[in-house]
Amino acid sequence: MDKQVSARNAQGCAERVTAVVNQLVDERCTRLPHEGRNGGAPLPSHDEVGKIISLSRRLVFPGFFGASGISYHNLQYYTGIAVEELYNCLRVQIAAGLAFGEQGKESIKDDAKSMALDFIERLPELRRVLFSDAQATFVGDPAAPSVDEVIFCYPGVRATVNYRIAHILYELGVPVIPRMISEQAHRDTGIDIHPGASIGESFVIDHGTGVVVGATAIIGNNVKLYQGVTLGAKSFARDENNNPVKGVPRHPIIGNDVVIYANTTVLGRIHIGDGAVIGGNLWITEDVGAGEKLVQARPDNILRFK
Amino acid sequence: MDKQVSARNAQGCAERVTAVVNQLVDERCTRLPHEGRNGGAPLPSHDEVGKIISLSRRLVFPGFFGASGISYHNLQYYTGIAVEELYNCLRVQIAAGLAFGEQGKESIKDDAKSMALDFIERLPELRRVLFSDAQATFVGDPAAPSVDEVIFCYPGVRATVNYRIAHILYELGVPVIPRMISEQAHRDTGIDIHPGASIGESFVIDHGTGVVVGATAIIGNNVKLYQGVTLGAKSFARDENNNPVKGVPRHPIIGNDVVIYANTTVLGRIHIGDGAVIGGNLWITEDVGAGEKLVQARPDNILRFK
Amino acid sequence: MDKQVSARNAQGCAERVTAVVNQLVDERCTRLPHEGRNGGAPLPSHDEVGKIISLSRRLVFPGFFGASGISYHNLQYYTGIAVEELYNCLRVQIAAGLAFGEQGKESIKDDAKSMALDFIERLPELRRVLFSDAQATFVGDPAAPSVDEVIFCYPGVRATVNYRIAHILYELGVPVIPRMISEQAHRDTGIDIHPGASIGESFVIDHGTGVVVGATAIIGNNVKLYQGVTLGAKSFARDENNNPVKGVPRHPIIGNDVVIYANTTVLGRIHIGDGAVIGGNLWITEDVGAGEKLVQARPDNILRFK
Amino acid sequence: MDKQVSARNAQGCAERVTAVVNQLVDERCTRLPHEGRNGGAPLPSHDEVGKIISLSRRLVFPGFFGASGISYHNLQYYTGIAVEELYNCLRVQIAAGLAFGEQGKESIKDDAKSMALDFIERLPELRRVLFSDAQATFVGDPAAPSVDEVIFCYPGVRATVNYRIAHILYELGVPVIPRMISEQAHRDTGIDIHPGASIGESFVIDHGTGVVVGATAIIGNNVKLYQGVTLGAKSFARDENNNPVKGVPRHPIIGNDVVIYANTTVLGRIHIGDGAVIGGNLWITEDVGAGEKLVQARPDNILRFK
Amino acid sequence: MDKQVSARNAQGCAERVTAVVNQLVDERCTRLPHEGRNGGAPLPSHDEVGKIISLSRRLVFPGFFGASGISYHNLQYYTGIAVEELYNCLRVQIAAGLAFGEQGKESIKDDAKSMALDFIERLPELRRVLFSDAQATFVGDPAAPSVDEVIFCYPGVRATVNYRIAHILYELGVPVIPRMISEQAHRDTGIDIHPGASIGESFVIDHGTGVVVGATAIIGNNVKLYQGVTLGAKSFARDENNNPVKGVPRHPIIGNDVVIYANTTVLGRIHIGDGAVIGGNLWITEDVGAGEKLVQARPDNILRFK
Amino acid sequence: MDKQVSARNAQGCAERVTAVVNQLVDERCTRLPHEGRNGGAPLPSHDEVGKIISLSRRLVFPGFFGASGISYHNLQYYTGIAVEELYNCLRVQIAAGLAFGEQGKESIKDDAKSMALDFIERLPELRRVLFSDAQATFVGDPAAPSVDEVIFCYPGVRATVNYRIAHILYELGVPVIPRMISEQAHRDTGIDIHPGASIGESFVIDHGTGVVVGATAIIGNNVKLYQGVTLGAKSFARDENNNPVKGVPRHPIIGNDVVIYANTTVLGRIHIGDGAVIGGNLWITEDVGAGEKLVQARPDNILRFK
Repeated sequence: MDKQVSARNAQGCAERVTAVVNQLVDERCTRLPHEGRNGGAPLPSHDEVGKIISLSRRLVFPGFFGASGISYHNLQYYTGIAVEELYNCLRVQIAAGLAFGEQGKESIKDDAKSMALDFIERLPELRRVLFSDAQATFVGDPAAPSVDEVIFCYPGVRATVNYRIAHILYELGVPVIPRMISEQAHRDTGIDIHPGASIGESFVIDHGTGVVVGATAIIGNNVKLYQGVTLGAKSFARDENNNPVKGVPRHPIIGNDVVIYANTTVLGRIHIGDGAVIGGNLWITEDVGAGEKLVQARPDNILRFK
Repeated sequence: MDKQVSARNAQGCAERVTAVVNQLVDERCTRLPHEGRNGGAPLPSHDEVGKIISLSRRLVFPGFFGASGISYHNLQYYTGIAVEELYNCLRVQIAAGLAFGEQGKESIKDDAKSMALDFIERLPELRRVLFSDAQATFVGDPAAPSVDEVIFCYPGVRATVNYRIAHILYELGVPVIPRMISEQAHRDTGIDIHPGASIGESFVIDHGTGVVVGATAIIGNNVKLYQGVTLGAKSFARDENNNPVKGVPRHPIIGNDVVIYANTTVLGRIHIGDGAVIGGNLWITEDVGAGEKLVQARPDNILRFK
Repeated sequence: MDKQVSARNAQGCAERVTAVVNQLVDERCTRLPHEGRNGGAPLPSHDEVGKIISLSRRLVFPGFFGASGISYHNLQYYTGIAVEELYNCLRVQIAAGLAFGEQGKESIKDDAKSMALDFIERLPELRRVLFSDAQATFVGDPAAPSVDEVIFCYPGVRATVNYRIAHILYELGVPVIPRMISEQAHRDTGIDIHPGASIGESFVIDHGTGVVVGATAIIGNNVKLYQGVTLGAKSFARDENNNPVKGVPRHPIIGNDVVIYANTTVLGRIHIGDGAVIGGNLWITEDVGAGEKLVQARPDNILRFK
Repeated sequence: MDKQVSARNAQGCAERVTAVVNQLVDERCTRLPHEGRNGGAPLPSHDEVGKIISLSRRLVFPGFFGASGISYHNLQYYTGIAVEELYNCLRVQIAAGLAFGEQGKESIKDDAKSMALDFIERLPELRRVLFSDAQATFVGDPAAPSVDEVIFCYPGVRATVNYRIAHILYELGVPVIPRMISEQAHRDTGIDIHPGASIGESFVIDHGTGVVVGATAIIGNNVKLYQGVTLGAKSFARDENNNPVKGVPRHPIIGNDVVIYANTTVLGRIHIGDGAVIGGNLWITEDVGAGEKLVQARPDNILRFK
Repeated sequence: MDKQVSARNAQGCAERVTAVVNQLVDERCTRLPHEGRNGGAPLPSHDEVGKIISLSRRLVFPGFFGASGISYHNLQYYTGIAVEELYNCLRVQIAAGLAFGEQGKESIKDDAKSMALDFIERLPELRRVLFSDAQATFVGDPAAPSVDEVIFCYPGVRATVNYRIAHILYELGVPVIPRMISEQAHRDTGIDIHPGASIGESFVIDHGTGVVVGATAIIGNNVKLYQGVTLGAKSFARDENNNPVKGVPRHPIIGNDVVIYANTTVLGRIHIGDGAVIGGNLWITEDVGAGEKLVQARPDNILRFK
Repeated sequence: MDKQVSARNAQGCAERVTAVVNQLVDERCTRLPHEGRNGGAPLPSHDEVGKIISLSRRLVFPGFFGASGISYHNLQYYTGIAVEELYNCLRVQIAAGLAFGEQGKESIKDDAKSMALDFIERLPELRRVLFSDAQATFVGDPAAPSVDEVIFCYPGVRATVNYRIAHILYELGVPVIPRMISEQAHRDTGIDIHPGASIGESFVIDHGTGVVVGATAIIGNNVKLYQGVTLGAKSFARDENNNPVKGVPRHPIIGNDVVIYANTTVLGRIHIGDGAVIGGNLWITEDVGAGEKLVQARPDNILRFK
């Protein structure tokens, strides 16, 4: 290309780029998340929320996560600092969450401090329940060599840790942050548990990719879900504007000691009775009685395929 | 171990390592990606492609991603720089993609610049369509508190952003880069949409893990897919050398206003009519009429399960 | 808030935090992973294990991963250094794994060196088999433009690389590290293959999210699995304490040239004969004969769905 | 060492470490910087102050520092963002400086904003004067190939940039931050100019290591200092408590067009007249007249040395 | 350049590079630091030594360095962890130093632990003396607004911190690490104090660039050195092989309450008496009596210069 | 502040900031470094130049710098890669330097390759000479325990490494890069040697802070300079426009076996004869004969000072 052409092209390129910039800054087609409310408070930070998860995890399972080299001798130092860091992270992110959620901004900072402190105080109970989950996972898996290995690298436990952290914050009324926490587990494990779900002790998710648990689901103790299991909504009420009505119970209630095998979809506010065993690849939209055992209809039509 | 033994072992170790190195550099069993074509041009970079995604996303949804603190006051500055960075990243990665794809190298640099500019100019339209997706996701989810939260942290929107970016580049004829973009969404969300697929406005993926949309699929407006839904190929033609024939339409055509529930597999160049509702866990290899509603055969055989 | 109240609150806050710290360091409710065994050896490191994967991958596929700009001219240098780094990483992580696994600690360091060296020597064979996988993936996918692109960015190949590395270490008797390697693939691809599974050459996983292959599964040559396929255990023996009995074969045996479509669940120590084709969304708990082709029962009950 | 001895040693080690920790946290021998004043406000950050310097430098000399690829076409975008970042950094660091300086905390945030804005408004004048310094450096150095190279990598200019930034903040009454800015130049260049000094245009420091300019020094236009030159205080008044009296003029006044050669020490509130040339390695504690030229007494005693 | 020429050039280039590589790996002209001794132990790490300095500094001056937000409430946690980290860093680097120093390797690890612990126990005394230095610096500088600012950003204090750390390790017999510590101060401040020097309390270095204090220098209490002052050796004894004899006292002895002004060079094992004041730019190679005050011979020959 | 006032202030702030941005982008008062020449080629990068230094240093002194764990067994691999990386860095930075230097751009890329290769070929000789410097430093310093420690952490050797690298590039005609290399040494060590200077073997700089060696200085073999020594220009010719005339010899010529003590300033194109010993703090502007020994005039006027 000779120089003149090249210069003309460069000119044309700059003009085209400028035109795009002008279109993209046109207010009529731009939506900013925080203009006009809460004085431009910063959004919650995915990185900082990740730090909340990781600090909580290392407080629940010291030595397994965070600094190696922890012993009973120095546990107090590490715990003291981690609790303080966690409190500070929470305080800031909860405030950002409250601002994001469009709640009135007057008392945001004080509310955030108070919620952060409430969360901190639930750490010992959080540890107790998460140990029950890890123990149940170990007992139910012939391939698991030890509880330590389950805690250290099983994705089901990882997702359950995030869920239980998110659920505490959800109960405290924190907006958006619980969702961010559950999405981080979703991304890492393929397990998507809504923070609003209510889940009993000794909860086990095996392999887990594709598991979905909806916002109003209730799960008893000692339940085991395999990969691809959905506890979802079949449909939902809409208001006069055709918007979905928020807050209506629409996900299943699962009893104690239930097992649901891979890829089964359980939809609607139905009841699965205690001790039921539900085979894989099923579509369940009606109640299942206690102790019932279901499997898919046989593929009786064995055909030439293709 | 006494010292002599230890020295002998170290010696043996070094020899064994050297032998492996020699085997691994033997040209007969080594395949390099870029030897013998395009003069050793560097491969596309996963990191730089990630930057293309992230710059595009922050241009589409300013304030939600990238620098916080954006307001209408300074939007122009951030937009100007992001567009420029995007253009430069694209230019380099498209060129690397063209070289990877073994196309003649004469005009690679000029082609890459021209394609990069074409992409930039489609950003305003990209923003418009992605807003329709976010809005439809909000309207269809009782658990979503606001469109802002949908944009900010829903994996379905994230995957759709990547798909729409990748699709533009695919249409411009860029090799490999679109695939890399869709694989980044696949890794983060478990949603695997081929850049070649054609998807209408107001597209919703809920939860999404395990969703697969094939290269020649065509999807109408206002379609909703749940987790685990596959729009795939049942089989494909092979040529005389038993290689698959490229480019033949082999994936489903989905009408407008269709809903497909979790884990259903729709295979082959079949048609799903407008307004159809397909239940979960189904295997669909034949056309479904407009407005039809399908569910799985009942598990009528309730057996003792062991 | 006036100053006195604020000071009293700060005081109360500090006291509440201190109380939580004290609860969390109470030995009765704290479990440390490495207290009381192996003298506080550090845990294996997820980052270092990631480095083992990435070094192995770049030795198997030089130029595709790691330093770009590799040519036959300088391949020896890069290979020499990568082999050495890999050996050193392996040595340290295998030792950490042996300590984690509670094996006697006397000979850990020497055992780790010897196992690391054994692994290194299997790299050439690893490369050969992984090329067969990549080649089979290319041949079976009409959307794949080249083997290079398959190696460079297909998640099925990525997961298979991790599996084959993990399997070698598993066979060498290394604890926990193989599991960490397979979990990294699981996180990145949604594909969960247990390191203990035995898998033949020319293995293909398409899309792959949600695939699960259990610890005692045996898979022949030239097998293709689609997304969401499970090769799992239906149930497992328990000992007198109700703990699962470890090491019992409980996963399927898959013959050669088998294809299993999306979301199908195959459970128990059953046999799938050579050349069988199994449709998607099935629940298979009984043997399938050679050459058989199965599909799901038709959704013959087409109902009003609400 | 046998095991028992080793255990006893480990025990002893832990006890000794704990004893040291206890000594170090004893309040009687610990001085915290911000306890008891300003409510534990964070200290200024050396990193953030470094960012203030670097943002100012890139605004003064765009294209030489910061993003390469700046042209008149996009200068506005980069300038707009850099000014905003600079304002935000300044705002936070000035507030931290005000808190550090023990000034009343009521209006710190508003004062900091106002001072940050005042600084921003002096950037155009700062650029003008710094160009005069760079130009004078180029004209006076036969080894300098271009003004561009002087701006790009001469330590004298680097130190002068820091000085002029620090001096503006010093004049605005900002505590500690100016000192941190001059110390960063000191560390990088060995040139230590107190922010309080007053220095005219076209100021040149050649090589510069060891140059010291005191807080009350006054320097005219077109002055050149070589490495190792000190403009210091000979002594200073003390009050009744033997503390030095702050704020008394005690450093030299240098006229216009003065050159001072390497390693010369000029001390006290003396005057060096316009156009004076002072040779190297001198100790000057008395006035030097305009146009005077001084050199060291000859080493007339040429002796056997050693 | 046409293609053939280009290929020929590439060929020639590769050959020339290979020739250089071969020359550089020729054992006859290569000296490796650790071949043939101590089994290839790794060298000390400049980064880790930097961490030793920074951990020591934050233990001596908590809140000024390291984590901001330290209060008496949490000081114990931070101190506990920092002491432990410091101990571990020291242990490893001292061992590396002992190996570097060619000392017999049998007991290196145990010796290193013991020396590390000895160092830790001297931290409280180190803090006490460094406070005396900071206090003296404040008292002697009319430009210093507070002791806090002196601790926070004065290079003289920074260099003295490094010296006092290095000196403790030097006295404990640790090789090379003390030197690395003093070189880090040298690089950051231009102040080069040999770790072997002996320096009393309330030591002040003002500005400091170019200060050199030799290995056998002895300095009393309350001494102040300005920039560019050297306390060096005039000459040194050589043995029969013309190698310098190590360990002979060859640097000055400075009494209490001495001030030495800028750029003065004091050489040889001479005595500077208590209370002496030595002007700048002097060359001192003979004793100076207590209370004496010296200045440079006047530049009585005021000449036309040039 | 009430809300209205605050809003008005924010408004005023935005306006003031915008006004500054507009002033700063005004072309009349903005100088961009690369507008209007060489098509906006990027500037040389200080980081990449640092990499050139560090790669060269590790090739000269393998094992002392860069990867620890180098042995004769793997030296070839590390050397091969480091040479290649160095070549590539050099190639790019030399090209940037040629563009910066305003030389015609036609052949820049080819010239840069050729110069990079020429540099590479001088590495073996560079190593030989630098060993002579390190050896001489060791022999002349009673405080140096070994040559290894001298190579590993003496700033004089560090600065000499940079000088000798820069000098080779200077001789090859590379603009600006040599200066950047010498400035990095200047910053780290306080030693400022112009790349144009010519320096013989066995060159020693002790302590070194403040040393300056000018562009046309010539130094023989076995010369030792102490801290603060300047070999500078006394004055320089100016052309009719009062610009300094470039390239005229104006710095001293130092013979073999010369020692110059601390802080002495030697100026002008004078000769210092072989074996001369020059004491510290002198101002030397006339020739010194071979073997002569000079010291400063005694401070015979011992006065009351103050």
